[in-house]
Formats: sequence, structure tokens, C-alpha cells
Amino acid sequence: VKLQFWFEFASTYSYPAVMRIGKIAAARRVEIEWRPFLLGPLFHAQQGMKDSPFNVVPVKGSYVWRDVERICQKYDLPFRRPGKFPQNGLMAARITLSLPQEERPNFVKAVYQASFVHDRDISDPHILHAAARRAGLDPLEVLSAMRSEPIKDQLREETAKAADLGIFGAPSFVTRDGELFWGNDRLEDALDWTVRGTLRPNTQN
Amino acid sequence: VKLQFWFEFASTYSYPAVMRIGKIAAARRVEIEWRPFLLGPLFHAQQGMKDSPFNVVPVKGSYVWRDVERICQKYDLPFRRPGKFPQNGLMAARITLSLPQEERPNFVKAVYQASFVHDRDISDPHILHAAARRAGLDPLEVLSAMRSEPIKDQLREETAKAADLGIFGAPSFVTRDGELFWGNDRLEDALDWTVRGTLRPNTQN
Repeated sequence: VKLQFWFEFASTYSYPAVMRIGKIAAARRVEIEWRPFLLGPLFHAQQGMKDSPFNVVPVKGSYVWRDVERICQKYDLPFRRPGKFPQNGLMAARITLSLPQEERPNFVKAVYQASFVHDRDISDPHILHAAARRAGLDPLEVLSAMRSEPIKDQLREETAKAADLGIFGAPSFVTRDGELFWGNDRLEDALDWTVRGTLRPNTQN
Repeated sequence: VKLQFWFEFASTYSYPAVMRIGKIAAARRVEIEWRPFLLGPLFHAQQGMKDSPFNVVPVKGSYVWRDVERICQKYDLPFRRPGKFPQNGLMAARITLSLPQEERPNFVKAVYQASFVHDRDISDPHILHAAARRAGLDPLEVLSAMRSEPIKDQLREETAKAADLGIFGAPSFVTRDGELFWGNDRLEDALDWTVRGTLRPNTQN
């Protein structure tokens, strides 16, 4: 069975989800569809926001950075608060879309690590080049996607599709029967629903 | 050890937290401080919002109602989407503040059930009267708190205190060492932190 995994490269909570999803999906025999999209246009269209809500509402931002730090400790993931937030993930999203599904996870992880571990500018082609190499891809072939017109269109369509699915944040998970789950903290629930069509009864505390 | 539990009677996600916290805190030998506050003034001061974000952003609202429904199924809690949202929890908060800690849980649960199970108006003194009776309290004694000037002041102070702690939503949990956790989905983490001062290593998936 399949689960759609929608992520945005600028999204903080997408980072732990990106790093965690492969292993726990495999343990449940769920196949993940990696689907990059752009959250900026959705924030603007749905909420009139021109910046991350973590910047717009400072008290929420302070909380979120501490929360993400704790979450990364919990899951043993290195994390450094980026100097600039949010980053521009447009090029990374285009490159990801140009890759077949099986090549996406390693590239996506490498980009998130550049961003949230090494505080690199992920709109910089040199950083994306290095991420492609680290993912075992041919960087020159991969980087051409940054300027490809069909890929640009495809990313716009994917972002529109995300909106159609009711997505308003990242990471988001959509099951085959149309259930939407939002947030790294819903990853296990989304997988449970995918496998069993319900959250009961094995997930209770 | 103690954990502060900050809740707002209008808050949807506070409902599952209110119903769940007693049992799992007892299992971890954590003592819960039940602290009602008003989220409205904080939403307004911090985010300029005059209504629930679930009403202000419809796509988020649609998600939230489905999410809460699924969460309640997961934890075997009855739930009915209220006809009117958000409700006015001012009187219920004042009454709660007038009660000693040990009398708060049953009254608070009865009010949340009136709201999120039976779709009753929790600003109606008759409903609060019934909730007090169901909690084993003397309704006439309890209802006098609705008009008590010292209690009005105390609720204002508690709400200011919540803001000072960095709270911007409900439910929120604050540990003795000052860690803030926001959301029903952080309840277990808040308890783990209270007991062990970290989220690692027993909470990993």
C-alpha cells in the first residue's frame, strides 16, 4: 500500500519527517510517494501570509525552534537552527520532481541535512550539486532540472494538487482513501491508517 | 513531581487532553496542576486574531475537525462537533479557579463533555450547575464564583501568567524546569520530560 508524503524544503518539521519516514514505513511495508511542493503560494492564498508563521508570530516561533530541537534530540537527529529562515526551496523542489521516486529519498535527505544540520543555502547550485553527489546522482544531469520548463509547470501543478487535497502545511500525508494528516507528529498515525484504515486499537497509550 | 496543565474551555484539542491526562500522569506518578486560562486575549494580543484560527482559516478548520474526530476515535472518547464554535468558557474558567486542585478534574471533564459530547452551551449557568452536580460538588456554592471579583482578577492574572510562560495555544504543558509543550499530541512528551528531564531514549519509534 502507498502513502503520499508531501513536503516543502523550507519546512522545519518536514526535516525530522524526511529523516524518519523511510525506516518506519518499511517496517510497516508501506510504500512512500515522495512529493515536493511549495508551501509559500498556499500560505499566501489560504491565509494571506507572506512569510513563515514562525516569523509572523514571534511567540510561536520561539516555541517551534525549541520544539524542533527537542524532537531532533528525541529521534537522535543532528539539528542546528538555520541562520536564515525560511530558505528558498524552489530549485531543490524542481530537482526532486525530475527524479524517479527511488532516487528521491537520498537527494531530499541530503538537501534537508544541508539546510538543518549544516546551515547551507539550499538555493545555491553548488550546495545542490553537492547534495546530488552525496545522493549518488550525476550532478550535471540533475541540475538541468532547475531550468526545465516542463518541470516548472509540473511543480506548479503539484502545488495546486496539494491545495486540492486540503493541504495547508508541511509535512502532510495523504492516504489512498483520502485522509489527510498534518505534521511530523502525525507520521505514525498516517502509516497506521494506511495499513489498517483506522487509528484503533493498537496505537493507544 | 508536578506538571502544569494549561487549558481553555473553548479549545478543541484541550478536550482529549483533559480526558486523557489523569490516567497517564498517575501511571508516571506525576502530579497535575490544572490551570484554566483564557486563550482569546492571547490570540488577540499575540496574533491580532479576534476569532478561532479554525474559523479564520477554513482549510485548517476542515482539517482540525476531522483530526479531532480521528483522535477521539483513537482514544475511545465520544465526540460530537459542536454547533457553535468557539464557545465562551469564561464562567467555567472562573468556577474552576475557585475550586481546590483536587476538585478540578471532575468538574473540568464534566464541562468538556457538555461541550464536545453533548453540544451544550457552557456559558449557560444551568449547564454549569449540572456539571458541578455531576462532579459531586455543591452547585450553589460553586456558581457564586461566576460573579466573584477576586476570582475575576485571579483569572486575569492566570492568563497574564500563561503569556509570560510563552503560551500561545491550548492545551499547553509547562514543566518545573520551564519547558513548554503545546498540544494534546505533546502530552506524553511533557510527562516524559517531567519524569526524566529529556525525551530520550524510551520514547523512540
